[in-house]
Amino acid sequence: MSAIDTCLDNNAKYASTFGGAKLDAAPSMQLTIVTCMDARIDPTLMLGLAPGEAHVIRNGGGIVTEDVIRSIAVSQNVLGTREVMLIQHTECGFLRLSEEELKDRIEGEAGARPDFTMGAFEDLENNLRRSIEIVRTSPYLSSKDVVRGFIYDVRTGLLSETS
Amino acid sequence: MSAIDTCLDNNAKYASTFGGAKLDAAPSMQLTIVTCMDARIDPTLMLGLAPGEAHVIRNGGGIVTEDVIRSIAVSQNVLGTREVMLIQHTECGFLRLSEEELKDRIEGEAGARPDFTMGAFEDLENNLRRSIEIVRTSPYLSSKDVVRGFIYDVRTGLLSETS
Repeated sequence: MSAIDTCLDNNAKYASTFGGAKLDAAPSMQLTIVTCMDARIDPTLMLGLAPGEAHVIRNGGGIVTEDVIRSIAVSQNVLGTREVMLIQHTECGFLRLSEEELKDRIEGEAGARPDFTMGAFEDLENNLRRSIEIVRTSPYLSSKDVVRGFIYDVRTGLLSETS
Repeated sequence: MSAIDTCLDNNAKYASTFGGAKLDAAPSMQLTIVTCMDARIDPTLMLGLAPGEAHVIRNGGGIVTEDVIRSIAVSQNVLGTREVMLIQHTECGFLRLSEEELKDRIEGEAGARPDFTMGAFEDLENNLRRSIEIVRTSPYLSSKDVVRGFIYDVRTGLLSETS
C-alpha cells in the first residue's frame, strides 16, 4: 500500500467525524507561523494548535523566501493576522550541508543542477536573525510589531527564543 | 496574552512529555505533502500523520512555486522521499480573489504593491492539474512516478482526487 493511500484511509476516518465545518478562513489567533518542512516538526502538537487558529507556512529550512513573504502578505492583509512566529530547528539539513553540497546531491540524483539558491546556512541563530529582519523590513507586510524567532530542539521538543 | 506566548506555554507542556527524540530526519513514509497555509487545514489530523512520517510544505494556495520545487528537491534527493501528495482546497483565498485584487489589498494595507506573482487562480481543478504537471516535469526531482493531486473540502473534511 502506498503512503498516499494510507493517508486517504486516514482521511476517510477523519471526515466521518469532522467537526470543522464552521471554521472561518481568518485565523482566530491572528497568528502566522513559518517553519521547516522537517518531518519531526508537528506544529499542531508542538504548539498546541487547533484547526482554525493559525496560518502555517513551511518550506525547506523554514527560511523567509519571496514565496514566504507572498504568503505572509496575504495572511496579514487579506485575512487579518498580526503576529509572526518564525521557527527553525537543530539538525536541519540546510545547516548540515552547504549550498554546493545540496546542489551536488540534486544533480547527482535527478540530473539537473539547480539554478536557484538552495538556502543553506552555517549558523542557525544568525540565519534566524536574518529571517526575522527580512520580515520586519518587508514593504508588503502591515503588522511587523510582533515578529519573533525560535529554535526548536528536535531532541527535547523545546522552543527557545532568539533575540 | 499574545498568541505566541500561548503557543510557548503549550510547547513547554509538549516538551515535558516529549517522545520524539529518536526520530530520523528522513521521513519514514517517504512522503512529501504540499498544501495551503489555510488555518482550517491540519495535515496531522486530516491525514492521520505522526511525527517523523512525512515532509510537509505549505504556502499561500498550496501552489507549486520555485520555492516548493527547491523544497521537494531536497526532500527527495537528500532525504529519500518517493511520493508527492498535492492538496489544494475549496474556499481558498487565492481562488476567491484575483491577482489584481490581492495586490490591491496588500498595497492598501501595507503601502507597497507586490512586484511578484500572487498565485491567484480561477479554476481549482485546473490549477491543481497545473501544479501536478510542474512537479512531474521538474528536472530537479528524482521520483516523479507517484505525484497525485487532491482537493480538500473545508466543509466536509474529505479529500477527493483530481486526475
